[in-house]
Amino acid sequence: MGSSDEEVNNLQVILKQYVTSGSPKESDMQMQSSRIRLKVPDELNGAVLVKNMYLSCDPYMGHRMRNLEDHYIHGFTPASPIEGFGVAKVLDSTHPNFNKDDLVWGVTGWEEYSLISDTATLFKIQDTDVPLSYYTGILGMPGMTAFAGFYEICSPKKGDHVYVSAASGAVGQAVGQFAKLLGCYVVGSAGSKTKVDLLKNTFGFDEAFNYKEENDLVGALKRFFPNGIDIYFENVGGKMLDAVLLNMRQHGRIAVCGMISQHNPEQRDGIQNLLCLIKKCIRMEGFLFSNYVHLYPKFMETVLPLIKEGQIVCVEDVVEGLEHAPGALIGLYSGQNVGKQVVVVSHE
Amino acid sequence: MGSSDEEVNNLQVILKQYVTSGSPKESDMQMQSSRIRLKVPDELNGAVLVKNMYLSCDPYMGHRMRNLEDHYIHGFTPASPIEGFGVAKVLDSTHPNFNKDDLVWGVTGWEEYSLISDTATLFKIQDTDVPLSYYTGILGMPGMTAFAGFYEICSPKKGDHVYVSAASGAVGQAVGQFAKLLGCYVVGSAGSKTKVDLLKNTFGFDEAFNYKEENDLVGALKRFFPNGIDIYFENVGGKMLDAVLLNMRQHGRIAVCGMISQHNPEQRDGIQNLLCLIKKCIRMEGFLFSNYVHLYPKFMETVLPLIKEGQIVCVEDVVEGLEHAPGALIGLYSGQNVGKQVVVVSHE
Repeated sequence: MGSSDEEVNNLQVILKQYVTSGSPKESDMQMQSSRIRLKVPDELNGAVLVKNMYLSCDPYMGHRMRNLEDHYIHGFTPASPIEGFGVAKVLDSTHPNFNKDDLVWGVTGWEEYSLISDTATLFKIQDTDVPLSYYTGILGMPGMTAFAGFYEICSPKKGDHVYVSAASGAVGQAVGQFAKLLGCYVVGSAGSKTKVDLLKNTFGFDEAFNYKEENDLVGALKRFFPNGIDIYFENVGGKMLDAVLLNMRQHGRIAVCGMISQHNPEQRDGIQNLLCLIKKCIRMEGFLFSNYVHLYPKFMETVLPLIKEGQIVCVEDVVEGLEHAPGALIGLYSGQNVGKQVVVVSHE
Repeated sequence: MGSSDEEVNNLQVILKQYVTSGSPKESDMQMQSSRIRLKVPDELNGAVLVKNMYLSCDPYMGHRMRNLEDHYIHGFTPASPIEGFGVAKVLDSTHPNFNKDDLVWGVTGWEEYSLISDTATLFKIQDTDVPLSYYTGILGMPGMTAFAGFYEICSPKKGDHVYVSAASGAVGQAVGQFAKLLGCYVVGSAGSKTKVDLLKNTFGFDEAFNYKEENDLVGALKRFFPNGIDIYFENVGGKMLDAVLLNMRQHGRIAVCGMISQHNPEQRDGIQNLLCLIKKCIRMEGFLFSNYVHLYPKFMETVLPLIKEGQIVCVEDVVEGLEHAPGALIGLYSGQNVGKQVVVVSHE
C-alpha cells in the first residue's frame, strides 16, 4: 500500500448492463481496473475508506442486477462496482465511530478498496476470536436473517416439526441449527449428496434429502413429515412451496426468506395450492434483514458463545481472488456452492 | 304439523354424487321427499329436532361437494341431505340447553326438518328484534368471519387503506363496513354495476369498481391506491391476488378468507408474485370461522347495536322455497347473487 496521498490500482467488478431476460450470467459483469486515493476526500466528511477483505455472495443480489421498479431496493448502477455485504478494514475515517485499522462488516463495493459514505450499514467487529469471514455469514447478514426469521416470524416451540429448504446455504444451515438447539425435529433439503451429508453429519439435522432425486416432492415431504410440517423456512419458492403447502399442519407458519428458484421472471412457477392457507389457518410472512438490525446485539450475545463452544458450526465455500467473484455469485443460482459462499479479496 | 308421533313429509336437497371435475353444478344435487317423525328418537339422547327456516348459501360449500382428503373438513355424504348454516326452530329437544320453540342458528340440513345430534354448532338466538335471516349473514357465520378476519388477522388501524374483493357478498359487505367505522379508506370490487352501486351508496365504501370491466387489474388497483394497499381482505384468489401483491404497501396484511375464483381445481391460476411477500414484508394469513367461535359474545355485543342503530346494514338476496336452494348455491360461483344469499324454507 502506498502513502495515503498516492493513488493505487483498484480492481473492481462492474455490472455491464441490467439483466433484461433470463437468469443473471457471469458475462453480465466484468473486471475493471480503476485508480483510488486511499484517503477520504475533504468534501465527504463522515465517510470511511476501507480495504475489502471478504465479500459475501447472496441470492438477493440477482434482483439488484435487474432494473427494478421497486421503491425499497434499487438496482445496481450499471458501469459501477457491484455492492454487497463484506468484511473490511478501515484505512481512513472521517466518521467519529470508526478509526483507522478498525474491522467492520456491512455494505461495501466489489472492489479492492471502497469509499463508503453510507456508514449506517456498517458494524464495527468487536470479537476477532472467530474467523473474520464469519461476519459475511453466520455472524453477519445471513446469520441475523436466520435468527430474525426463525425466532421473530416462525413462533417456534420445542417439538415443532421444521422443514428448511436450501438448507446447506448460509441462512439454511443457521436456521436448522437454531431449530435443533430449541428441541425441534428438523429436516432439510439440498441439491447434492455432499450437501445432504453435511446437513446430517455436520449440522445435526434429523433428516435430509436431495430434492433433485425426488420425482414426487409432495410424497417426499410426507415421508419425512407423516403428521405434517409446523414451520417451513422458505428459501426456494416454486414447486417446493406448492408441495409444502399440501404438507403443512394446522396453524403452520411459513417464513418467506427467499425464493432462489424464482429469480428468472420468465420461468416462474405459478403457485397452485394457496387454498391450503385457509383450510389449515397458515400464516405466511415475508421479512427482510433490514427490519431487524436492532436485534444485532441480542443476536451476538446469543450466537457468538454458541459458535465458540462449537454448538453452532459454519461451513463456508471460499473462493480466493476478486476475479472469481462473478462466477461465485452466479454459481449460487445453480447451487454450485457448498455452504456459505465467500470471496477472499485479501486476508489482511 | 301433525302430532309428534306422526311421520310427515320432509323435502330434502341431496348430493347425488361427489363432483369429480369442473365446477359444482345444480345437477349434482336433486330434490327428494323423505319421511320424518317430529320427535327425537329415544336412542339419540342430547339431540334436537328442528324445523328449518332460513338456509345460508356459502362459497365453502362447493368444497364439500367434492371428496376431499382433508382431515379438517369432510365432504358431504352422497345420497344424503347437504349441510350448511341455517336458522331453525326447535320442535323437540332432549338437550338441556335447548327447549321447544327456541330459535337457533348453526349447522343444519338442507331439508324441511332436521334431527341434529351435534348440537355443539348451535347457538340459541336471544335477540329477535332483527330479521331472523340475519343470523345466516351479518349476525351469523359470515358476520363473525368478517369480524374475526378483520380485527384478529388484519391488525387494522385508523387511516389504513383497505381493499375488499367480492365486497358485496356476505363477508365482504361486513368487512367494508367494519373498516369504515374504524376510519379506514375502503375500496371494494364486485362483478356488476348494481353491486358497485351498492358498495358506494348502501355500504359507504369510499370507492368501488367492477373488476369485469378492467382489462388491467394491476393498473385499476394503482388508480384507487396510488400509495399502495395496507390491508387486503381476500375473497377471490387467482389473478386478483397477483394484482394485489404488486400493489401492496410495506408491512401489508392479507387476510385469506376465501378464493371463490379457484373452486374448480382444473382452472386454477398459478400465483406468480409471491416474491412481493419478501420485498414488502407482507403477512398473508388464512383463517377459519371455527377458530373464533369464542368471540361470538363479544361480536354480538359490538355488532347488534350497530345494526339496530343503522350504522351497519345488511343486503340479502332472498330466494323463497327449498327447491330453489341448489340454484342459489351454484349461483354464488358465477356471482348471480346480489348480497348475502339466503333461502327461505319457512317463515315461521
